[in-house]
Order: sequence, then C-alpha cells, then structure tokens
Amino acid sequence: MTLASWVESANGDTDFPVQNLPYGVFDAGLGPRCGVAIGDQILDMTEVELGFEPELFSEPAWNRVMEAGPALWADLRAKLTEVLSDESYRERVAPCLVPQQGVKMHLPFRVAEYTDFYAGKHHATNVGTMFRGAENALPPNWLSIPIGYNGRASSVVVSGTPVHRPLGQLKGPDDDLPRFGPSQRFDIELEMGAVVGQPSSGLVSVAQAEEMIFGYVLLNDWSARDIQSWEYQPLGPFQAKATATTISPWIVTAAALEPFRAEAPPRERPVLPYLRQEGPGLYDIALEVAIASAGRDETVIARTNMRELYWSAAQQLAHHASSGCPMRVGDLLGSGTISGPTRDSRGSLLELSWGGKEPVEIGGGQSRSFIEDNDTLILRGQAQGDGYWVGFGPCTGTVLPAAPLPDWAKE
Amino acid sequence: MTLASWVESANGDTDFPVQNLPYGVFDAGLGPRCGVAIGDQILDMTEVELGFEPELFSEPAWNRVMEAGPALWADLRAKLTEVLSDESYRERVAPCLVPQQGVKMHLPFRVAEYTDFYAGKHHATNVGTMFRGAENALPPNWLSIPIGYNGRASSVVVSGTPVHRPLGQLKGPDDDLPRFGPSQRFDIELEMGAVVGQPSSGLVSVAQAEEMIFGYVLLNDWSARDIQSWEYQPLGPFQAKATATTISPWIVTAAALEPFRAEAPPRERPVLPYLRQEGPGLYDIALEVAIASAGRDETVIARTNMRELYWSAAQQLAHHASSGCPMRVGDLLGSGTISGPTRDSRGSLLELSWGGKEPVEIGGGQSRSFIEDNDTLILRGQAQGDGYWVGFGPCTGTVLPAAPLPDWAKE
Repeated sequence: MTLASWVESANGDTDFPVQNLPYGVFDAGLGPRCGVAIGDQILDMTEVELGFEPELFSEPAWNRVMEAGPALWADLRAKLTEVLSDESYRERVAPCLVPQQGVKMHLPFRVAEYTDFYAGKHHATNVGTMFRGAENALPPNWLSIPIGYNGRASSVVVSGTPVHRPLGQLKGPDDDLPRFGPSQRFDIELEMGAVVGQPSSGLVSVAQAEEMIFGYVLLNDWSARDIQSWEYQPLGPFQAKATATTISPWIVTAAALEPFRAEAPPRERPVLPYLRQEGPGLYDIALEVAIASAGRDETVIARTNMRELYWSAAQQLAHHASSGCPMRVGDLLGSGTISGPTRDSRGSLLELSWGGKEPVEIGGGQSRSFIEDNDTLILRGQAQGDGYWVGFGPCTGTVLPAAPLPDWAKE
Repeated sequence: MTLASWVESANGDTDFPVQNLPYGVFDAGLGPRCGVAIGDQILDMTEVELGFEPELFSEPAWNRVMEAGPALWADLRAKLTEVLSDESYRERVAPCLVPQQGVKMHLPFRVAEYTDFYAGKHHATNVGTMFRGAENALPPNWLSIPIGYNGRASSVVVSGTPVHRPLGQLKGPDDDLPRFGPSQRFDIELEMGAVVGQPSSGLVSVAQAEEMIFGYVLLNDWSARDIQSWEYQPLGPFQAKATATTISPWIVTAAALEPFRAEAPPRERPVLPYLRQEGPGLYDIALEVAIASAGRDETVIARTNMRELYWSAAQQLAHHASSGCPMRVGDLLGSGTISGPTRDSRGSLLELSWGGKEPVEIGGGQSRSFIEDNDTLILRGQAQGDGYWVGFGPCTGTVLPAAPLPDWAKE
C-alpha cells in the first residue's frame, strides 16, 4: 500500500507527496525560513521540534544540513516521513504548517560554485551540427570526458525571478565589427541540477561522488546564442551564460529519487576506470518545457526524460575533482541540456527551431524561434511512482526587455 | 622628498615602504588576523586603534573593508600612512607590529568567484600558434572582447602552498583512447589578479569598474597543458586549470599603484563604447618568473611588465558585467598570462620552451620544458618609484609528485 500523509493534499494530485519531502526556503511574511513541502503546505522547520539541533535550520539555506552529512540526512528524512505520515503527530505538527499559496520562495541553498556540464548526447550533436557542421558535431573528447565548464554562481536565481534580456557583443558572419545590443537569440536550456552536499579534496570515486550528492533541482541555463557564437572560441561560453541560471525552489533529495534509478545509455567507447559507475546512475524523471507569451495560456513545446543523459552527476562530480579541484558544500552541477532523439524532445529553442529555421508553434497562431520579451518559460519534472509521483515544482522565468543602453555604451 | 617611515626597515631595500601598505592575513601563533605590511614588519589591525570600527578587522579576511567602500578605503590608507610615517605615533603603534619572519600567511580575502582572462596579446598569439597553427593564432574575437572564462574559486591558494601535480585525462595525437595519469606538461602562468571590492548588478562602465577594483595580487594560474589540449574544445579549459591558482599574500591597493599608471598598447581595431577607457588603464609593474629545482638556487627565466596587457582589469570587469552578471565583493580577475615580445619575456614554460621543443636553461646544467617534481616557481612584481618601489612579495609554490593512483582508478 502506498504510504499516505495526514496532510490530505499530499495524497492526491501533487508534486509533493510524503514520498518526496523536498527542502526549500520560503517567506510567509516573517522572513525567509527553511521548510519542507508536503502537499500544498510547507512544514516550517524553525517552528517544528523534531529533536534536531535548531542551528541546522537557523539560517535560511539548507547548507548546514548538507554539511552535517549523510547520516543526518537519513535521520532527518526518516523523522519527517514519520511525523507527516503517522496521524498521531498531527496535533503537534499541524500548527507548524504554512500554506504554499502566497509565500515567496528563495534560493534553497547558498550556491558555492556553479558548473555546467554537457552530458546530453542528442543536444551536443544537435548544437555541434549547427555550430561546427555535421562532420564535427560531437567533439572527439565527448565520449571520454564528462565535458563541463565553470559557470557563475552569482547569477543563479530561484524560479519566478524575472530575467532581463541580456546585452552583449553580437556579430553576424558578414559583419566587419561586432555591435553591442540586446541578444536576438535568447534561449533556454532544460537541465537537471545536482546539489553537492559534502566537500572533498583530492580524487573522488564515482561511488564516493554518489554519497556526496544531496539532491536535485530543475535548472534552466538561459543562453544567448548570438553572444555565445561570437565569444566562445577558444575559452568557452562566458557572458552568453552569465545573465541568469534559474533553479526550481525545492531540493528533491537523492533519497526521494532512489526508487526511480535508471541506467544510462550503453557506452559507445570504453570509459576510463575513474569514471566507471556500478549500477544505474540516472533517474527516470519525465521532463517538459512549456512557454506562455504575455497574457496567454502555456503550450508544452518539448517532452523528454533525464534518462537521455550520457553521463551521471556522480560521474561529472568524480571528473570535476580529478585534477585535485576541491569541491564544496553547495556546489551546483548543471547536467547539460537534456534532449531526446525526436524533434519534440529537444531541450532548447535552438534545437527545437533548428537555429531559427523551423519556428515552433506555441498556440494562438504564434510561433517562436527564440524567446520574445514577456514570454514565460516553465520547466517541469516528475518521477512516476506507484500511486504517487515525486515532482520538483515548476522552474519558471519571465523574460523582460533588455535594459536601455546608457549613453556611455552607445555608438 | 620621499616619504619615510619610523619603521626603519620600510625605508630601504623592501617591497613594503610606507608608499605601499598592502593588506594581508597573517598568523603569528594567535590565529589568522588582518595585517598591513610595513618593511619587515606587519601592523596587526586587531591590535592597533586607529578610530575605525573593530568589526572591519574582526574576521581574518579583508572582505569587510572592501564592502565598506572607496571612501573608507581612502580614509584607512590616509590614516595608516599618517601613523606609520609620523614619528609621534611610534610609541602607540610600535607595540602592534609583528615581525614578518616566521608568520604563516593566509589568503588575504575570501575569494567569491574567480575568473581568468586572456588579455596578453603575445601570449594569446604564442599559444594560439602552438594549439591551432600560425594562421589561426589570434582568435577573430580577441581584439574586440576581453576574452575570459570562469575558473574555480575553491582552488585559489596563498603563496607558499605546495601544489600536487595533477592527474587527468591525457591523449597523444596518435593514441586511440586517453589514459588517466599525472600531467607531463604542468606549467605556470604569470598573471596579475585584480580584486573586486564593490558589488554590481547590471551594466558597469569602465570608469565605474575602476572604482570597484580594490587592489591587485600576483597570480600563478597553474596549467596542465596536456589535460588542456584534450579537454578544452568546445567549452574551454576545466580540469587543466582546477588544481590550484596561487596568489601573493598581500593585496597591493589600487591607490598604492596609482603613481605607476601606464597606457595600454594602441588599439589595433576599434573598440565598442562600453569598453573604451579614458586615461591609462594599466600599471608599470616589472614582473619576473624564477625557478628553483630541489635544493638549488633560483634562476630567473622570464622578465616582463604588466604594460604588455592589451585589456585592463577595468575593461575586463566592465565586460564581465555586460550581460547582467552580478559581480561580488571578493571576485578575483586573473589578467591572463603576461608575455612580452621576446623569448625571455614569456610568462609560461609552454611559451618559453615553445611547447617543449626548446628547453629553458635553469642553471646547474639543468633545463626545463615543463615543471618537474619538487621544482619551486616564484613570481615577483615591483613598481619603481622615486627612491622606493612598491612590491608584491613573492608568489611561490613547490610542485610535489602526483598523488598515487587508487586501485579504483587503475586500468
């Protein structure tokens, strides 16, 4: 029988059944606090007494819990499961519930550093074809290395934060010189973000890396394709990816996702021992991208699954540490864009519209090659269980017009 | 007449005359504390009373002073100059001096995020020639964009910290598959690091960026060339640059360097307005690289000058913020390797030995293509004034053998 909660909204149509129990930071008018989503409610961790050190929840971020380590993570999850499923706790715990409706969500953790990987083979092949031609689509190292680059932690924002269209250097193939102006090819990237919950120094095995991962969020790595194509050689994407990276507000723990483990696709080239993974390294998480232009209903433009990734977060983390790079509590690892093999399973507009050549229908007679001002983009993710699903809550952002150019930036 | 100090060692042969007054964090046995270098002494900022809020110096990092802003920076420097030059303060201030000899230095500030630029034209041309051939040496965007990529803040260490030779994926041009082992082409990069002392959100002009820069350090961006050449396409350097980045222990303030302002080389292509700089954006700082193999005296292998850079730190910072990327107090911006036009002015072994083809003599009948185990690398920088110089103190690191491969990482 499926475990149920005495919080009735947790037993029906919800991303947050008692099997999930994700961690976020909410503000219901008393300042930001740590909370746990259950149905349409939030358990206020600064109010409920469960026998844990209050200091764990004394700052509005889950970093202290992460620092406390995997044994504490397991104890906390077990206790939360107990008090939210066992009716006898209702009287004591119900007063610590806050309705989700109307609260303001904050980043669930202090992002130490942000790294973005490139682990979707369909995505890498599609983008490579458009940027470098079909014969050079997949880079020679791609099947050997979980390719990644360092991003900018200061630009990570929580779902719901508006994003201004970026300004940047743009240069068409026939232009002599670049100009400075609003990106005309502003895009999303549908990704999963892994949250590193334990530090390391020195080499880390894939098995150790698994133990270091606290949980996952949905992640939209906003990307200015025109800035990117001019700037990215030879040192990689920089300002094209620095405007914002939006994450969903709840950290879904690795423990909650454990029932949904899934095998990565078969290796197409032998993998070095330090990257070999025993057992299934991915999760079966159905993902979708929706878009809503100003004042209109949303349209789903892509459906895919986390299983389309070639490299797992644990493999990425093991590689990240391989040169001796110290990893920190609060590091965020973007998976790379998750595209499937079909057109309607592509995780970016660049791929969906094939570089703007095949605009995507978004309903109401409208179509999109790239994002237009006042469009809202929504990512969703759900792992389907038996009689419930584990969801992430939406990861949304509305694109506002670019800031006006100050005089000193005008020609 | 040149201003002198009542600290006699500050008036002779020293990097730290009263004209300098750089900021560091030292431990003389009582834990790490904020201090100011003067001659061969350190003024303990937690002991001396100068009329500033003690909270500014209550943690062992200069971030709080940076956060306090440029007016405080100017007041603090004026007061320090007064009390260390005016004999009448000797009795009050001398008891707060600690000899530099024997103290352990720590990072002078909490590094928020680390970005590495590529602003040396001779370096970019040399490396481009070796990696991509002479016809593709300087990337097409290089004269328009201060090219940079995000590095890893967790790997920034203070001068004197030993560095283990990194492990990583290595693949020769004729190998079918990569192997995992110690880098055979481990290298230095001679750079200046700019320390961002004020935050921003949204666009920043070059003039505003100037005001945000608190000071400078010497910076050695250790680089594994063999890891880099296999991994860096298409998303840039990652593990090749993640082992360590060493900075000198004292932040030399922008104010102390002001008398040494120097023009950047003439523009070879028109620059977009948002990157235009009024007045000289660089500093005349003589730089050198020395190497000492185990138990031997050091040999200087390169001499160059910060004036060889094409882009200033203020231009880099303005570009960094151009897409809306929020900048933070404690951001560290590496200049890129500073090479001059001649062979003996190149800031990396890759260039000095031309990819290993022309090993460099280091004295005692030895030569180097790349770093060998137990070599110590030393960077130095000095701006020559009238009767004094402003120096950075050495930026050193000894390379230790790679960590042994654990069984799980062996073939």
